[in-house]
Amino acid sequence: MISEGTNRTLDLAISPDGSAAPGQLYTIEARSGVAVRLQKVQLLRIFNPSGHQVCDFWAFAAGDLTEYLSMAHLHTSLGSIFPKVGDKLVTTRRRALFTLTEDTSPGVHDTIIASCDAARYRELGCTQYHDNCADNLCMALCAIGLEAPLVPAPFNIWMNVPVAADGSTRFAPPVSKPGDRVVLRAEDDAIAVMSACPQDLTPVNGENAAPDILQFDVVDQAGNASSGR
Amino acid sequence: MISEGTNRTLDLAISPDGSAAPGQLYTIEARSGVAVRLQKVQLLRIFNPSGHQVCDFWAFAAGDLTEYLSMAHLHTSLGSIFPKVGDKLVTTRRRALFTLTEDTSPGVHDTIIASCDAARYRELGCTQYHDNCADNLCMALCAIGLEAPLVPAPFNIWMNVPVAADGSTRFAPPVSKPGDRVVLRAEDDAIAVMSACPQDLTPVNGENAAPDILQFDVVDQAGNASSGR
Repeated sequence: MISEGTNRTLDLAISPDGSAAPGQLYTIEARSGVAVRLQKVQLLRIFNPSGHQVCDFWAFAAGDLTEYLSMAHLHTSLGSIFPKVGDKLVTTRRRALFTLTEDTSPGVHDTIIASCDAARYRELGCTQYHDNCADNLCMALCAIGLEAPLVPAPFNIWMNVPVAADGSTRFAPPVSKPGDRVVLRAEDDAIAVMSACPQDLTPVNGENAAPDILQFDVVDQAGNASSGR
Repeated sequence: MISEGTNRTLDLAISPDGSAAPGQLYTIEARSGVAVRLQKVQLLRIFNPSGHQVCDFWAFAAGDLTEYLSMAHLHTSLGSIFPKVGDKLVTTRRRALFTLTEDTSPGVHDTIIASCDAARYRELGCTQYHDNCADNLCMALCAIGLEAPLVPAPFNIWMNVPVAADGSTRFAPPVSKPGDRVVLRAEDDAIAVMSACPQDLTPVNGENAAPDILQFDVVDQAGNASSGR
């Protein structure tokens, strides 16, 4: 997949192949995306400085991008639409690629809504290109020399989409707070992509709140923690 | 995508290219799948003779199989996880490929659960190949000379997966009744695939009920109705 338009995501690779320096704190600019290569048992810690910024998250098996995290498979394996600490996040082959090991937020995340994309913003009335998560995924992979085989349905960390008893859904502001973090342990080598969702036409990233930055670091299993926080 | 195993689906194409004879009633054998080519404005009527048989449903744009019905995009466009009569079913490009024009059942269908596949049956304890919907999709397309680029998350017609207030899900028996039908109008040329779900280890197809047949016909917009019912 190639993006419909472009933004700074193309220039924001953290290294040529997406490998992170363990312990270094990286910032995902508002409205952009970043890919990071993880080795088995490394921890990916994602931080929400503002508390109201949603992170669209995807992950692919490092050796075969046609295997990727799948929310539809996750629902079967968890018996829930809300992953909780201790839950394994599975791929299209029902293999655990990550475990959710820590979540300082109330655990309200979304697993049923597609990433925003250029078509979504056209529906919302945009007549010019609007930054979007689907393109950020494609560009973040392109920036490390890879191409997404598709845009999988994302794990929308901190996104609040209540499902009512009648099945109706709505876009509500996040309930996370400044400094919240979600920690994912890689259960195998993986390419993860995060997008600081640029949605500013619905309250996905907070009521009357501008899209904001996210931060992340990678921690080795040995305990080489981030120096940044 | 190619299937992990095979069953009679490979031999059950309704015609070499999947085109249907309008008005002819076709049977989908229990545990198998069938692909059907639809022209814009044709109606696809899917019948549930037993009332308890789930139909995994996928559809691709006829001209480009990389555009397909997407449940994650559907949730955004409908503001619901349950499509109702009058709702449009959209693709990965947020384009309406079908409209749900009739539903004689209570409207309980699933849009969040992945198709069963070989890996799912291994998880459930199967040590030998078990018929499964993901393979049925691949085989049904193969039977008309096409290859699925992936196994999209399906529209699980008549499948009953209640989502509780805490996000938990469970597999419950269908609430549809014998003879129920769902009618989909093609909004553009499409390749639809239906699988009579072979799940017999959970109550997806009814409590203690064996997987059963489904039936379908294609009706021209001119009103050339099925002779079969």
